[in-house]
Amino acid sequence: MALKWSVDEVFDYLRQEFPQALRDGVSYDVVKLEPGEAHVRLMAGEQQLRPGGTISGPAMMELVDFAIYVLLLAHHKEAARLAVTTNLAISFLRKPQPGAIVAQIRLIKHGRTLSVARVDIVSEVDGKLVASSEATYFMGGS
Amino acid sequence: MALKWSVDEVFDYLRQEFPQALRDGVSYDVVKLEPGEAHVRLMAGEQQLRPGGTISGPAMMELVDFAIYVLLLAHHKEAARLAVTTNLAISFLRKPQPGAIVAQIRLIKHGRTLSVARVDIVSEVDGKLVASSEATYFMGGS
Amino acid sequence: MALKWSVDEVFDYLRQEFPQALRDGVSYDVVKLEPGEAHVRLMAGEQQLRPGGTISGPAMMELVDFAIYVLLLAHHKEAARLAVTTNLAISFLRKPQPGAIVAQIRLIKHGRTLSVARVDIVSEVDGKLVASSEATYFMGGS
Amino acid sequence: MALKWSVDEVFDYLRQEFPQALRDGVSYDVVKLEPGEAHVRLMAGEQQLRPGGTISGPAMMELVDFAIYVLLLAHHKEAARLAVTTNLAISFLRKPQPGAIVAQIRLIKHGRTLSVARVDIVSEVDGKLVASSEATYFMGGS
Repeated sequence: MALKWSVDEVFDYLRQEFPQALRDGVSYDVVKLEPGEAHVRLMAGEQQLRPGGTISGPAMMELVDFAIYVLLLAHHKEAARLAVTTNLAISFLRKPQPGAIVAQIRLIKHGRTLSVARVDIVSEVDGKLVASSEATYFMGGS
Repeated sequence: MALKWSVDEVFDYLRQEFPQALRDGVSYDVVKLEPGEAHVRLMAGEQQLRPGGTISGPAMMELVDFAIYVLLLAHHKEAARLAVTTNLAISFLRKPQPGAIVAQIRLIKHGRTLSVARVDIVSEVDGKLVASSEATYFMGGS
Repeated sequence: MALKWSVDEVFDYLRQEFPQALRDGVSYDVVKLEPGEAHVRLMAGEQQLRPGGTISGPAMMELVDFAIYVLLLAHHKEAARLAVTTNLAISFLRKPQPGAIVAQIRLIKHGRTLSVARVDIVSEVDGKLVASSEATYFMGGS
Repeated sequence: MALKWSVDEVFDYLRQEFPQALRDGVSYDVVKLEPGEAHVRLMAGEQQLRPGGTISGPAMMELVDFAIYVLLLAHHKEAARLAVTTNLAISFLRKPQPGAIVAQIRLIKHGRTLSVARVDIVSEVDGKLVASSEATYFMGGS
Protein backbone atom coordinates (compact mmCIF):
# COMPACT_ATOMS: atom_id res chain seq x y z
CA MET A 1 0.00 0.00 0.00
CA ALA A 2 2.15 2.85 -1.29
CA LEU A 3 1.17 6.34 -2.40
CA LYS A 4 1.10 6.80 -6.17
CA TRP A 5 0.13 10.46 -6.28
CA SER A 6 1.25 13.50 -4.27
CA VAL A 7 -1.16 16.08 -2.83
CA ASP A 8 -0.47 18.34 -5.82
CA GLU A 9 -1.26 15.59 -8.30
CA VAL A 10 -4.46 14.77 -6.42
CA PHE A 11 -5.59 18.41 -6.52
CA ASP A 12 -4.64 18.78 -10.20
CA TYR A 13 -6.82 15.80 -10.98
CA LEU A 14 -9.69 17.10 -8.84
CA ARG A 15 -9.61 20.55 -10.45
CA GLN A 16 -10.04 18.89 -13.85
CA GLU A 17 -12.38 16.03 -13.06
CA PHE A 18 -14.32 17.05 -9.98
CA PRO A 19 -14.45 20.86 -9.82
CA GLN A 20 -17.67 20.67 -7.78
CA ALA A 21 -15.66 19.46 -4.77
CA LEU A 22 -13.52 22.59 -4.97
CA ARG A 23 -16.28 25.09 -5.72
CA ASP A 24 -16.30 28.65 -4.37
CA GLY A 25 -16.86 28.78 -0.65
CA VAL A 26 -15.32 25.39 0.08
CA SER A 27 -11.73 25.50 1.22
CA TYR A 28 -9.91 22.19 1.70
CA ASP A 29 -6.29 21.62 2.58
CA VAL A 30 -4.42 18.32 2.88
CA VAL A 31 -2.17 18.70 5.92
CA LYS A 32 -0.94 15.11 6.07
CA LEU A 33 -0.77 12.33 3.50
CA GLU A 34 0.85 8.97 4.19
CA PRO A 35 0.15 5.41 3.12
CA GLY A 36 -3.23 4.52 4.62
CA GLU A 37 -3.69 7.88 6.33
CA ALA A 38 -4.57 11.50 5.60
CA HIS A 39 -5.56 14.64 7.46
CA VAL A 40 -7.81 16.98 5.49
CA ARG A 41 -8.68 20.41 6.82
CA LEU A 42 -11.82 22.42 6.09
CA MET A 43 -11.74 26.11 6.86
CA ALA A 44 -15.46 26.50 7.51
CA GLY A 45 -16.96 29.73 6.19
CA GLU A 46 -20.50 31.09 6.18
CA GLN A 47 -21.62 28.45 3.69
CA GLN A 48 -20.77 25.66 6.13
CA LEU A 49 -22.68 27.03 9.13
CA ARG A 50 -26.16 26.05 10.28
CA PRO A 51 -28.62 28.04 12.42
CA GLY A 52 -26.94 28.70 15.76
CA GLY A 53 -23.61 29.35 14.05
CA THR A 54 -22.03 25.90 14.34
CA ILE A 55 -20.62 23.86 11.45
CA SER A 56 -23.37 21.92 9.67
CA GLY A 57 -23.71 18.16 9.41
CA PRO A 58 -23.63 18.17 5.59
CA ALA A 59 -20.37 20.16 5.66
CA MET A 60 -18.85 17.46 7.88
CA MET A 61 -20.22 14.63 5.75
CA GLU A 62 -18.90 16.27 2.59
CA LEU A 63 -15.51 16.64 4.28
CA VAL A 64 -15.48 12.92 5.14
CA ASP A 65 -16.40 12.02 1.56
CA PHE A 66 -13.73 14.35 0.19
CA ALA A 67 -11.07 12.95 2.53
CA ILE A 68 -11.88 9.41 1.43
CA TYR A 69 -11.64 10.45 -2.21
CA VAL A 70 -8.26 12.13 -1.63
CA LEU A 71 -6.92 9.00 0.03
CA LEU A 72 -8.23 6.77 -2.76
CA LEU A 73 -6.75 8.96 -5.48
CA ALA A 74 -3.38 9.10 -3.73
CA HIS A 75 -3.27 5.29 -3.61
CA HIS A 76 -4.90 4.33 -6.89
CA LYS A 77 -4.69 7.35 -9.24
CA GLU A 78 -7.42 7.47 -11.92
CA ALA A 79 -8.49 3.95 -10.96
CA ALA A 80 -10.17 5.52 -7.93
CA ARG A 81 -12.82 6.70 -10.34
CA LEU A 82 -14.20 3.16 -10.22
CA ALA A 83 -14.50 3.16 -6.44
CA VAL A 84 -17.93 3.49 -4.89
CA THR A 85 -18.73 4.19 -1.27
CA THR A 86 -21.19 1.53 -0.17
CA ASN A 87 -21.93 2.72 3.38
CA LEU A 88 -21.17 5.77 5.45
CA ALA A 89 -22.07 6.26 9.10
CA ILE A 90 -21.40 9.31 11.21
CA SER A 91 -21.98 10.18 14.86
CA PHE A 92 -22.17 13.86 15.69
CA LEU A 93 -20.63 14.22 19.14
CA ARG A 94 -20.36 17.97 19.77
CA LYS A 95 -21.48 21.05 17.85
CA PRO A 96 -18.29 22.36 16.23
CA GLN A 97 -17.54 26.03 16.72
CA PRO A 98 -16.92 28.03 13.53
CA GLY A 99 -13.33 27.78 12.29
CA ALA A 100 -11.22 24.94 11.00
CA ILE A 101 -12.00 21.26 11.42
CA VAL A 102 -9.71 18.41 10.41
CA ALA A 103 -10.82 15.00 9.15
CA GLN A 104 -8.24 12.46 10.28
CA ILE A 105 -8.81 9.44 8.06
CA ARG A 106 -7.18 6.07 8.45
CA LEU A 107 -7.72 2.83 6.55
CA ILE A 108 -8.56 0.07 9.01
CA LYS A 109 -9.03 -2.48 6.25
CA HIS A 110 -7.45 -2.34 2.84
CA GLY A 111 -8.62 -5.33 0.81
CA ARG A 112 -8.42 -6.12 -2.85
CA THR A 113 -12.04 -5.12 -3.41
CA LEU A 114 -13.32 -3.77 -0.09
CA SER A 115 -11.74 -1.15 2.13
CA VAL A 116 -12.89 0.52 5.32
CA ALA A 117 -11.87 3.97 6.53
CA ARG A 118 -12.35 5.42 9.98
CA VAL A 119 -12.53 9.17 10.28
CA ASP A 120 -12.19 11.39 13.36
CA ILE A 121 -13.26 14.99 12.88
CA VAL A 122 -11.42 17.27 15.29
CA SER A 123 -12.04 20.98 15.84
CA GLU A 124 -8.93 23.12 15.62
CA VAL A 125 -10.63 25.72 17.83
CA ASP A 126 -10.63 23.59 20.97
CA GLY A 127 -8.96 20.32 19.93
CA LYS A 128 -12.10 18.31 20.65
CA LEU A 129 -13.42 15.33 18.72
CA VAL A 130 -16.65 16.64 17.15
CA ALA A 131 -17.67 13.68 14.98
CA SER A 132 -16.75 10.06 14.31
CA SER A 133 -17.37 8.41 10.97
CA GLU A 134 -16.74 5.14 9.17
CA ALA A 135 -17.13 4.36 5.50
CA THR A 136 -16.81 1.24 3.37
CA TYR A 137 -15.91 1.45 -0.27
CA PHE A 138 -15.69 -1.01 -3.06
CA MET A 139 -13.15 -0.99 -5.90
CA GLY A 140 -14.65 -2.25 -9.12
CA GLY A 141 -18.05 -2.97 -10.61
CA SER A 142 -20.80 -3.72 -8.11
CA MET B 1 -48.04 14.35 16.21
CA ALA B 2 -49.65 17.13 14.15
CA LEU B 3 -48.07 19.53 11.68
CA LYS B 4 -47.64 23.06 13.04
CA TRP B 5 -46.18 24.68 9.93
CA SER B 6 -47.03 24.46 6.24
CA VAL B 7 -44.43 24.02 3.50
CA ASP B 8 -44.53 27.78 2.85
CA GLU B 9 -43.93 28.60 6.50
CA VAL B 10 -41.05 26.13 6.60
CA PHE B 11 -39.42 27.72 3.55
CA ASP B 12 -40.01 31.27 4.86
CA TYR B 13 -38.19 30.28 8.04
CA LEU B 14 -35.37 28.59 6.12
CA ARG B 15 -34.85 31.61 3.85
CA GLN B 16 -34.38 33.80 6.92
CA GLU B 17 -32.50 31.48 9.28
CA PHE B 18 -30.70 28.94 7.08
CA PRO B 19 -30.07 30.53 3.67
CA GLN B 20 -27.10 28.18 3.18
CA ALA B 21 -29.49 25.27 2.65
CA LEU B 22 -31.16 27.16 -0.20
CA ARG B 23 -28.03 28.59 -1.81
CA ASP B 24 -27.62 29.03 -5.57
CA GLY B 25 -27.36 25.72 -7.37
CA VAL B 26 -29.42 23.74 -4.85
CA SER B 27 -33.04 23.28 -5.78
CA TYR B 28 -35.32 21.58 -3.25
CA ASP B 29 -39.07 21.05 -3.47
CA VAL B 30 -41.38 19.54 -0.86
CA VAL B 31 -43.80 17.35 -2.80
CA LYS B 32 -45.54 15.77 0.20
CA LEU B 33 -45.87 16.80 3.83
CA GLU B 34 -47.97 14.89 6.32
CA PRO B 35 -47.67 14.11 10.00
CA GLY B 36 -44.59 11.93 10.37
CA GLU B 37 -43.81 11.88 6.67
CA ALA B 38 -42.38 14.04 3.88
CA HIS B 39 -41.14 13.70 0.32
CA VAL B 40 -38.43 16.17 -0.61
CA ARG B 41 -37.22 16.45 -4.19
CA LEU B 42 -33.79 17.56 -5.35
CA MET B 43 -33.42 18.60 -8.96
CA ALA B 44 -29.75 17.68 -9.31
CA GLY B 45 -27.71 20.10 -11.41
CA GLU B 46 -24.03 20.25 -12.31
CA GLN B 47 -23.07 21.08 -8.72
CA GLN B 48 -24.49 17.79 -7.47
CA LEU B 49 -22.67 15.50 -9.92
CA ARG B 50 -19.48 13.57 -9.31
CA PRO B 51 -16.95 12.22 -11.84
CA GLY B 52 -18.80 9.84 -14.12
CA GLY B 53 -21.86 12.09 -14.19
CA THR B 54 -23.92 10.48 -11.43
CA ILE B 55 -25.35 12.29 -8.40
CA SER B 56 -22.74 12.60 -5.65
CA GLY B 57 -22.90 11.06 -2.19
CA PRO B 58 -22.66 14.45 -0.42
CA ALA B 59 -25.60 15.75 -2.46
CA MET B 60 -27.67 12.78 -1.26
CA MET B 61 -26.51 13.17 2.35
CA GLU B 62 -27.34 16.88 2.27
CA LEU B 63 -30.78 16.03 0.88
CA VAL B 64 -31.39 13.59 3.75
CA ASP B 65 -30.30 16.20 6.29
CA PHE B 66 -32.50 18.83 4.65
CA ALA B 67 -35.52 16.50 4.56
CA ILE B 68 -35.10 15.75 8.27
CA TYR B 69 -34.90 19.46 9.03
CA VAL B 70 -38.05 20.18 7.01
CA LEU B 71 -39.95 17.49 8.88
CA LEU B 72 -38.71 18.75 12.25
CA LEU B 73 -39.65 22.35 11.46
CA ALA B 74 -43.10 21.32 10.22
CA HIS B 75 -43.75 19.52 13.52
CA HIS B 76 -42.01 21.74 16.03
CA LYS B 77 -41.61 25.22 14.45
CA GLU B 78 -38.69 27.24 15.83
CA ALA B 79 -38.18 24.65 18.58
CA ALA B 80 -36.56 22.45 15.92
CA ARG B 81 -33.59 24.77 16.28
CA LEU B 82 -32.71 22.84 19.43
CA ALA B 83 -32.73 19.48 17.67
CA VAL B 84 -29.44 17.77 16.93
CA THR B 85 -28.85 14.80 14.69
CA THR B 86 -26.89 12.28 16.72
CA ASN B 87 -26.27 9.60 14.07
CA LEU B 88 -26.78 9.26 10.36
CA ALA B 89 -26.12 6.15 8.30
CA ILE B 90 -26.55 5.78 4.58
CA SER B 91 -26.16 2.88 2.15
CA PHE B 92 -25.53 3.80 -1.46
CA LEU B 93 -27.28 1.13 -3.53
CA ARG B 94 -27.09 2.33 -7.14
CA LYS B 95 -25.41 5.27 -8.85
CA PRO B 96 -28.24 7.74 -9.50
CA GLN B 97 -28.52 9.09 -13.02
CA PRO B 98 -28.60 12.88 -13.34
CA GLY B 99 -32.07 14.34 -12.86
CA ALA B 100 -34.44 14.47 -9.93
CA ILE B 101 -34.20 12.33 -6.81
CA VAL B 102 -36.77 12.25 -4.02
CA ALA B 103 -36.03 11.64 -0.34
CA GLN B 104 -39.04 9.85 1.15
CA ILE B 105 -38.69 10.34 4.88
CA ARG B 106 -40.80 8.69 7.54
CA LEU B 107 -40.54 8.82 11.32
CA ILE B 108 -40.30 5.28 12.65
CA LYS B 109 -39.97 6.49 16.24
CA HIS B 110 -41.21 9.77 17.59
CA GLY B 111 -40.31 9.99 21.26
CA ARG B 112 -40.31 12.89 23.68
CA THR B 113 -36.56 13.35 23.34
CA LEU B 114 -35.37 10.87 20.70
CA SER B 115 -36.76 10.34 17.22
CA VAL B 116 -35.65 8.13 14.35
CA ALA B 117 -36.29 8.78 10.67
CA ARG B 118 -35.92 6.33 7.83
CA VAL B 119 -35.24 7.76 4.39
CA ASP B 120 -35.52 6.11 0.99
CA ILE B 121 -33.94 8.02 -1.87
CA VAL B 122 -35.64 7.18 -5.16
CA SER B 123 -34.57 8.30 -8.64
CA GLU B 124 -37.33 9.91 -10.68
CA VAL B 125 -35.48 8.91 -13.84
CA ASP B 126 -36.05 5.16 -13.43
CA GLY B 127 -38.05 4.84 -10.20
CA LYS B 128 -35.28 2.84 -8.52
CA LEU B 129 -34.22 3.00 -4.89
CA VAL B 130 -30.74 4.53 -5.03
CA ALA B 131 -29.94 4.96 -1.33
CA SER B 132 -31.29 4.04 2.08
CA SER B 133 -30.62 6.14 5.14
CA GLU B 134 -31.55 6.32 8.80
CA ALA B 135 -30.98 9.14 11.25
CA THR B 136 -31.54 9.64 14.95
CA TYR B 137 -32.09 13.07 16.39
CA PHE B 138 -32.41 14.43 19.85
CA MET B 139 -34.67 17.27 20.94
CA GLY B 140 -33.12 19.34 23.71
CA GLY B 141 -29.73 19.89 25.29
CA SER B 142 -27.32 16.99 25.04
CA MET C 1 -33.26 -14.13 -8.18
CA ALA C 2 -35.07 -17.42 -7.54
CA LEU C 3 -35.12 -19.59 -4.43
CA LYS C 4 -32.93 -22.68 -4.69
CA TRP C 5 -33.70 -24.22 -1.29
CA SER C 6 -36.90 -24.62 0.70
CA VAL C 7 -37.19 -23.83 4.41
CA ASP C 8 -36.72 -27.52 5.21
CA GLU C 9 -33.56 -27.75 3.12
CA VAL C 10 -32.22 -24.60 4.81
CA PHE C 11 -32.84 -26.04 8.28
CA ASP C 12 -31.39 -29.44 7.34
CA TYR C 13 -28.22 -27.67 6.24
CA LEU C 14 -28.11 -25.51 9.39
CA ARG C 15 -28.56 -28.51 11.69
CA GLN C 16 -25.52 -30.13 10.09
CA GLU C 17 -23.25 -27.17 9.47
CA PHE C 18 -24.24 -24.51 11.98
CA PRO C 19 -25.79 -26.23 15.02
CA GLN C 20 -24.79 -23.26 17.20
CA ALA C 21 -27.50 -21.17 15.57
CA LEU C 22 -30.10 -23.72 16.63
CA ARG C 23 -28.78 -24.45 20.11
CA ASP C 24 -31.02 -25.17 23.10
CA GLY C 25 -32.96 -22.15 24.19
CA VAL C 26 -33.12 -20.52 20.77
CA SER C 27 -36.30 -21.14 18.84
CA TYR C 28 -36.50 -19.85 15.28
CA ASP C 29 -39.27 -20.36 12.77
CA VAL C 30 -39.39 -19.23 9.13
CA VAL C 31 -42.95 -17.99 8.57
CA LYS C 32 -42.43 -16.58 5.07
CA LEU C 33 -39.85 -17.24 2.39
CA GLU C 34 -40.02 -15.69 -1.06
CA PRO C 35 -37.44 -14.46 -3.56
CA GLY C 36 -35.72 -11.51 -1.90
CA GLU C 37 -37.80 -11.69 1.25
CA ALA C 38 -38.21 -13.69 4.46
CA HIS C 39 -39.96 -13.45 7.81
CA VAL C 40 -38.15 -15.20 10.63
CA ARG C 41 -39.76 -15.54 14.06
CA LEU C 42 -38.00 -15.82 17.39
CA MET C 43 -40.01 -17.10 20.32
CA ALA C 44 -38.04 -15.31 23.01
CA GLY C 45 -37.51 -17.33 26.19
CA GLU C 46 -35.64 -16.58 29.42
CA GLN C 47 -32.28 -16.72 27.64
CA GLN C 48 -33.24 -13.80 25.41
CA LEU C 49 -34.34 -11.42 28.15
CA ARG C 50 -32.31 -8.65 29.73
CA PRO C 51 -32.76 -6.99 33.15
CA GLY C 52 -36.22 -5.44 33.21
CA GLY C 53 -37.70 -8.41 31.36
CA THR C 54 -37.57 -7.11 27.79
CA ILE C 55 -35.91 -8.89 24.85
CA SER C 56 -32.17 -8.18 24.75
CA GLY C 57 -30.26 -6.37 22.03
CA PRO C 58 -27.97 -9.35 21.31
CA ALA C 59 -31.02 -11.61 20.85
CA MET C 60 -32.34 -9.17 18.23
CA MET C 61 -28.95 -8.84 16.51
CA GLU C 62 -28.57 -12.63 16.41
CA LEU C 63 -32.06 -12.87 14.90
CA VAL C 64 -31.11 -10.37 12.18
CA ASP C 65 -27.92 -12.30 11.42
CA PHE C 66 -29.83 -15.59 11.34
CA ALA C 67 -32.52 -14.17 9.04
CA ILE C 68 -29.86 -12.93 6.62
CA TYR C 69 -28.21 -16.34 6.63
CA VAL C 70 -31.52 -18.09 5.95
CA LEU C 71 -32.20 -15.80 3.01
CA LEU C 72 -28.69 -16.31 1.61
CA LEU C 73 -28.91 -20.08 1.91
CA ALA C 74 -32.34 -20.16 0.26
CA HIS C 75 -30.95 -18.21 -2.71
CA HIS C 76 -27.44 -19.60 -3.03
CA LYS C 77 -27.36 -23.01 -1.25
CA GLU C 78 -23.89 -24.03 0.04
CA ALA C 79 -22.33 -21.11 -1.84
CA ALA C 80 -23.70 -18.86 0.93
CA ARG C 81 -20.86 -20.24 3.04
CA LEU C 82 -18.60 -17.83 1.21
CA ALA C 83 -20.72 -14.80 2.05
CA VAL C 84 -19.50 -12.39 4.68
CA THR C 85 -21.46 -9.64 6.34
CA THR C 86 -19.40 -6.49 6.00
CA ASN C 87 -21.56 -4.05 7.99
CA LEU C 88 -24.57 -4.28 10.23
CA ALA C 89 -26.40 -1.37 11.82
CA ILE C 90 -29.39 -1.53 14.11
CA SER C 91 -31.59 1.08 15.78
CA PHE C 92 -33.43 -0.03 18.86
CA LEU C 93 -36.76 1.82 18.81
CA ARG C 94 -38.84 0.34 21.63
CA LYS C 95 -38.14 -2.23 24.35
CA PRO C 96 -39.82 -5.41 23.10
CA GLN C 97 -42.11 -7.17 25.55
CA PRO C 98 -41.36 -10.86 26.13
CA GLY C 99 -42.95 -13.13 23.53
CA ALA C 100 -42.44 -13.55 19.83
CA ILE C 101 -40.68 -11.08 17.55
CA VAL C 102 -40.46 -11.38 13.77
CA ALA C 103 -37.56 -10.20 11.61
CA GLN C 104 -39.00 -9.11 8.27
CA ILE C 105 -36.02 -9.08 5.93
CA ARG C 106 -36.04 -7.74 2.39
CA LEU C 107 -33.19 -7.39 -0.10
CA ILE C 108 -33.03 -3.78 -1.27
CA LYS C 109 -29.98 -4.45 -3.41
CA HIS C 110 -28.99 -7.78 -4.89
CA GLY C 111 -25.75 -7.36 -6.81
CA ARG C 112 -23.32 -9.86 -8.21
CA THR C 113 -20.92 -9.35 -5.31
CA LEU C 114 -22.64 -6.94 -2.89
CA SER C 115 -26.14 -7.18 -1.47
CA VAL C 116 -27.99 -5.10 1.11
CA ALA C 117 -30.82 -6.29 3.32
CA ARG C 118 -33.20 -4.17 5.34
CA VAL C 119 -34.76 -5.73 8.40
CA ASP C 120 -37.78 -4.60 10.43
CA ILE C 121 -38.21 -6.34 13.77
CA VAL C 122 -41.85 -6.35 14.80
CA SER C 123 -43.27 -7.53 18.13
CA GLU C 124 -46.11 -10.02 17.84
CA VAL C 125 -47.35 -8.94 21.24
CA ASP C 126 -48.44 -5.47 20.16
CA GLY C 127 -47.60 -5.30 16.44
CA LYS C 128 -45.11 -2.47 16.95
CA LEU C 129 -41.82 -1.95 15.15
CA VAL C 130 -39.21 -2.51 17.86
CA ALA C 131 -35.98 -2.30 15.83
CA SER C 132 -34.74 -1.38 12.37
CA SER C 133 -31.60 -2.89 10.90
CA GLU C 134 -29.61 -2.89 7.69
CA ALA C 135 -26.77 -5.17 6.67
CA THR C 136 -24.43 -5.38 3.71
CA TYR C 137 -22.89 -8.65 2.69
CA PHE C 138 -20.32 -9.66 0.18
CA MET C 139 -20.31 -12.87 -1.86
CA GLY C 140 -16.79 -14.12 -2.49
CA GLY C 141 -13.31 -13.54 -1.18
CA SER C 142 -12.62 -10.09 0.28
CA MET D 1 -16.45 10.54 35.22
CA ALA D 2 -15.20 8.24 37.99
CA LEU D 3 -15.70 4.51 38.45
CA LYS D 4 -18.26 3.64 41.13
CA TRP D 5 -17.98 -0.15 40.93
CA SER D 6 -15.04 -2.52 40.63
CA VAL D 7 -14.94 -5.46 38.22
CA ASP D 8 -15.97 -7.79 41.06
CA GLU D 9 -18.95 -5.63 41.95
CA VAL D 10 -19.98 -5.49 38.31
CA PHE D 11 -19.84 -9.29 38.00
CA ASP D 12 -21.68 -9.81 41.31
CA TYR D 13 -24.46 -7.61 40.00
CA LEU D 14 -24.54 -9.38 36.62
CA ARG D 15 -24.69 -12.83 38.22
CA GLN D 16 -27.79 -11.75 40.14
CA GLU D 17 -29.57 -9.55 37.62
CA PHE D 18 -28.42 -10.70 34.18
CA PRO D 19 -27.39 -14.37 34.41
CA GLN D 20 -28.17 -14.79 30.70
CA ALA D 21 -25.05 -12.77 29.85
CA LEU D 22 -22.92 -15.22 31.81
CA ARG D 23 -24.64 -18.43 30.71
CA ASP D 24 -22.77 -21.70 30.14
CA GLY D 25 -20.51 -21.55 27.12
CA VAL D 26 -19.86 -17.81 27.31
CA SER D 27 -16.65 -16.84 29.01
CA TYR D 28 -15.98 -13.12 29.55
CA ASP D 29 -13.11 -11.54 31.41
CA VAL D 30 -12.53 -7.84 32.14
CA VAL D 31 -8.81 -7.27 31.61
CA LYS D 32 -8.83 -3.47 31.99
CA LEU D 33 -11.26 -1.06 33.62
CA GLU D 34 -10.60 2.65 33.87
CA PRO D 35 -12.76 5.75 33.74
CA GLY D 36 -14.20 5.87 30.23
CA GLU D 37 -12.42 2.73 29.07
CA ALA D 38 -12.55 -1.05 29.37
CA HIS D 39 -11.05 -4.12 27.72
CA VAL D 40 -13.31 -7.16 27.79
CA ARG D 41 -12.07 -10.54 26.63
CA LEU D 42 -14.11 -13.36 25.16
CA MET D 43 -12.56 -16.81 25.08
CA ALA D 44 -14.45 -18.10 22.07
CA GLY D 45 -15.51 -21.73 22.31
CA GLU D 46 -17.53 -23.98 20.01
CA GLN D 47 -20.72 -22.00 20.67
CA GLN D 48 -19.19 -18.85 19.24
CA LEU D 49 -18.01 -20.33 15.94
CA ARG D 50 -19.77 -20.18 12.59
CA PRO D 51 -19.40 -22.48 9.57
CA GLY D 52 -15.77 -22.31 8.46
CA GLY D 53 -14.57 -22.23 12.07
CA THR D 54 -14.21 -18.49 12.58
CA ILE D 55 -15.83 -16.48 15.38
CA SER D 56 -19.42 -15.57 14.50
CA GLY D 57 -20.83 -12.08 14.03
CA PRO D 58 -23.43 -12.50 16.79
CA ALA D 59 -20.69 -13.53 19.24
CA MET D 60 -18.85 -10.30 18.44
CA MET D 61 -22.01 -8.19 18.67
CA GLU D 62 -22.90 -9.76 22.01
CA LEU D 63 -19.36 -9.02 23.23
CA VAL D 64 -19.73 -5.36 22.23
CA ASP D 65 -23.07 -5.14 24.01
CA PHE D 66 -21.63 -6.82 27.10
CA ALA D 67 -18.59 -4.52 27.15
CA ILE D 68 -20.87 -1.46 26.97
CA TYR D 69 -22.96 -2.80 29.83
CA VAL D 70 -19.87 -3.44 31.96
CA LEU D 71 -18.65 0.10 31.39
CA LEU D 72 -22.06 1.58 32.19
CA LEU D 73 -22.39 -0.44 35.39
CA ALA D 74 -18.89 0.51 36.50
CA HIS D 75 -19.75 4.20 36.10
CA HIS D 76 -23.37 4.33 37.18
CA LYS D 77 -24.07 1.23 39.33
CA GLU D 78 -27.72 0.09 39.32
CA ALA D 79 -28.70 3.28 37.50
CA ALA D 80 -27.28 1.67 34.36
CA ARG D 81 -30.44 -0.41 34.38
CA LEU D 82 -32.20 2.61 32.91
CA ALA D 83 -29.76 2.95 30.01
CA VAL D 84 -30.86 1.90 26.56
CA THR D 85 -28.67 1.42 23.53
CA THR D 86 -30.25 3.45 20.74
CA ASN D 87 -27.95 2.51 17.83
CA LEU D 88 -25.19 0.02 17.24
CA ALA D 89 -23.12 -0.28 14.09
CA ILE D 90 -20.38 -2.80 13.41
CA SER D 91 -17.99 -3.37 10.51
CA PHE D 92 -16.57 -6.85 10.19
CA LEU D 93 -13.04 -6.42 8.86
CA ARG D 94 -11.42 -9.86 9.03
CA LYS D 95 -12.69 -13.32 9.94
CA PRO D 96 -11.36 -13.91 13.47
CA GLN D 97 -9.54 -17.17 14.06
CA PRO D 98 -10.83 -19.26 16.96
CA GLY D 99 -9.36 -18.23 20.31
CA ALA D 100 -9.61 -15.09 22.39
CA ILE D 101 -10.82 -11.72 21.14
CA VAL D 102 -10.77 -8.50 23.14
CA ALA D 103 -13.29 -5.66 22.88
CA GLN D 104 -11.46 -2.43 23.61
CA ILE D 105 -14.17 0.06 24.44
CA ARG D 106 -13.72 3.77 24.93
CA LEU D 107 -16.27 6.52 25.52
CA ILE D 108 -15.84 9.21 22.90
CA LYS D 109 -18.75 11.22 24.24
CA HIS D 110 -20.06 11.12 27.78
CA GLY D 111 -23.03 13.47 28.04
CA ARG D 112 -25.67 13.87 30.70
CA THR D 113 -28.20 11.88 28.68
CA LEU D 114 -26.38 10.61 25.57
CA SER D 115 -23.08 8.77 25.40
CA VAL D 116 -21.18 7.21 22.53
CA ALA D 117 -18.74 4.32 22.77
CA ARG D 118 -16.25 3.20 20.16
CA VAL D 119 -15.17 -0.41 20.23
CA ASP D 120 -12.21 -2.10 18.55
CA ILE D 121 -12.31 -5.89 18.54
CA VAL D 122 -8.80 -7.30 18.37
CA SER D 123 -7.84 -10.97 17.95
CA GLU D 124 -5.36 -12.24 20.53
CA VAL D 125 -4.26 -14.91 18.07
CA ASP D 126 -2.62 -12.51 15.61
CA GLY D 127 -3.11 -9.06 17.15
CA LYS D 128 -5.22 -7.88 14.22
CA LEU D 129 -8.25 -5.60 14.33
CA VAL D 130 -11.13 -7.87 13.34
CA ALA D 131 -14.12 -5.57 13.83
CA SER D 132 -14.93 -1.94 14.55
CA SER D 133 -18.11 -0.90 16.30
CA GLU D 134 -19.82 2.20 17.63
CA ALA D 135 -22.84 2.44 19.88
CA THR D 136 -24.95 5.28 21.27
CA TYR D 137 -26.84 4.90 24.49
CA PHE D 138 -29.30 7.01 26.34
CA MET D 139 -29.58 7.32 30.11
CA GLY D 140 -33.17 7.78 31.23
CA GLY D 141 -36.65 7.31 29.84
CA SER D 142 -36.99 7.64 26.10
